[in-house]
Amino acid sequence: MSNFDVILEEKIKGVNDIVLKYLPKEEGYQKKVIEAMNYSVLAGGKRLRPLFMQEAYKMFATDNRNIEALERFMAAIEMIHSYSLVHDDLPDMDNDEYRRGRKTTHVVYGPAMAILAGDGLLGYAYEVAAHGFNENNDYKMVAKAMKLLTRKPGLYGMLGGQAVDVENDKINKPLDKDMLDFVYRLKTSALIEASICIGAVLGGANDEQVEELEKAACLIGLAFQIQDDILDVEGDEQVIGKPVGSDDKNNKTTYVTLYGIDKAKKYVEDMSLEANSILKKYNNEFMLSLVEKLITRDK
Amino acid sequence: MSNFDVILEEKIKGVNDIVLKYLPKEEGYQKKVIEAMNYSVLAGGKRLRPLFMQEAYKMFATDNRNIEALERFMAAIEMIHSYSLVHDDLPDMDNDEYRRGRKTTHVVYGPAMAILAGDGLLGYAYEVAAHGFNENNDYKMVAKAMKLLTRKPGLYGMLGGQAVDVENDKINKPLDKDMLDFVYRLKTSALIEASICIGAVLGGANDEQVEELEKAACLIGLAFQIQDDILDVEGDEQVIGKPVGSDDKNNKTTYVTLYGIDKAKKYVEDMSLEANSILKKYNNEFMLSLVEKLITRDK
Repeated sequence: MSNFDVILEEKIKGVNDIVLKYLPKEEGYQKKVIEAMNYSVLAGGKRLRPLFMQEAYKMFATDNRNIEALERFMAAIEMIHSYSLVHDDLPDMDNDEYRRGRKTTHVVYGPAMAILAGDGLLGYAYEVAAHGFNENNDYKMVAKAMKLLTRKPGLYGMLGGQAVDVENDKINKPLDKDMLDFVYRLKTSALIEASICIGAVLGGANDEQVEELEKAACLIGLAFQIQDDILDVEGDEQVIGKPVGSDDKNNKTTYVTLYGIDKAKKYVEDMSLEANSILKKYNNEFMLSLVEKLITRDK
Repeated sequence: MSNFDVILEEKIKGVNDIVLKYLPKEEGYQKKVIEAMNYSVLAGGKRLRPLFMQEAYKMFATDNRNIEALERFMAAIEMIHSYSLVHDDLPDMDNDEYRRGRKTTHVVYGPAMAILAGDGLLGYAYEVAAHGFNENNDYKMVAKAMKLLTRKPGLYGMLGGQAVDVENDKINKPLDKDMLDFVYRLKTSALIEASICIGAVLGGANDEQVEELEKAACLIGLAFQIQDDILDVEGDEQVIGKPVGSDDKNNKTTYVTLYGIDKAKKYVEDMSLEANSILKKYNNEFMLSLVEKLITRDK
């Protein structure tokens, strides 16, 4: 295990503790839906979004300003990420029975409870974040963060991208370049943009800095998604059988189907270089290595 | 048409205009999901929740303070109400094909798009409300309103009640008195509490006043729901065939099945008297008449 991997693992553990701290207690008459919500969040994952948020915060915060709000928003972004997975997996959506090797929420709790669990996570994310308005934190900064937390996962962010995807899947229409960029930017980049920008805002970044980091976050999300497309294809060539999840993707427009694998690889390289040239200004070595690792991953 | 009905109709028209003003424009690649969202909100209804909010605001505001935030929260509470109906009607939930004489969202747009439309409405409600943090409005008051807007529709409000209902339906278990009160308070009263308390907060009510009005709102919601139970039963006796929606309810625990019709009527009377004795302190004749009309309605 490399030195970086050890640090990464420690950081993920710390982030995970923060996320767990803000989950609702499994008690009361509505205990079952809370269990379903927590089941979804506890399914694991790398907690990348709250980690990005925390690292962006560290780029700017010289004291512990808004630290309690930061923790709340870290938990909130992970709940929002979880809600989107629960609803994506539903029988009426992608109808996936497994995610990360565990049964999906609707398989364990039934579709009705999974719909409510997703709704519950989305709403509770905002409830946890809204309680960041208190005397420990700066109201104006928390308000800015709240605008990002409501905007980026929504209609003009992640959900907008999902909706275009769902609609085009239904009519089996391939995406053109503009639409593919739109879907990738919204579906994948929007939550990374939210994470990095919210961290920066709570740490004290000015508008110009937030805008610059938004651009970097967008590029990170795109590069990550295109790398995914590449791995899907190369996985098919390398292993017997298909990698998990590739069935759906085989009929889908991706950067690889649109541009070919070599050009797709060049896009990943160019985008990560551009993202890193922005991030370099803000003195966070760990963040640079993390982005490098994520984008050049081979599985 | 009585004088009150004329005034009510005018007010509803005004509230409706405010709700429409904040709906997302049907444009962009994600146009379809926006159409589905707006279809759900435009399905009509009496706009009671935003009307309650506006009337509660008027009890306290001596100038136009926070008036822009008020409008945003009025639109938001109606979007949240709509989201809950869209998801309630889904095939995996109540599987209703009609609501208020119109096809439900999933019938027109398909279940996947209806799931996204509901998610979109919930998220967009918070986005519209969060943008109430601006120089026109008082940040501390808007923050208080935001806490209510996230709390009351969620896990410890409406959604918590829905979840208990769904769970007990599934195992076909009748509710006991405590659970029925819990479900009614959360499913029906929580959004009315949110509406009235948010209006009061934005108008400048102090904590004690908000708490008192929360109690009144809770009683209004309960009385309204019990009156619904009574009308369902009396509707069955009076008309040939069953009233719309009663099929599901016939197997359900209600105040009528638990206490009998006479005692249920007494509850409605007592609760509305108690609610009105609180409301009377705040000099809003229209609100008193509105509550009276809603609770003693005969259809």
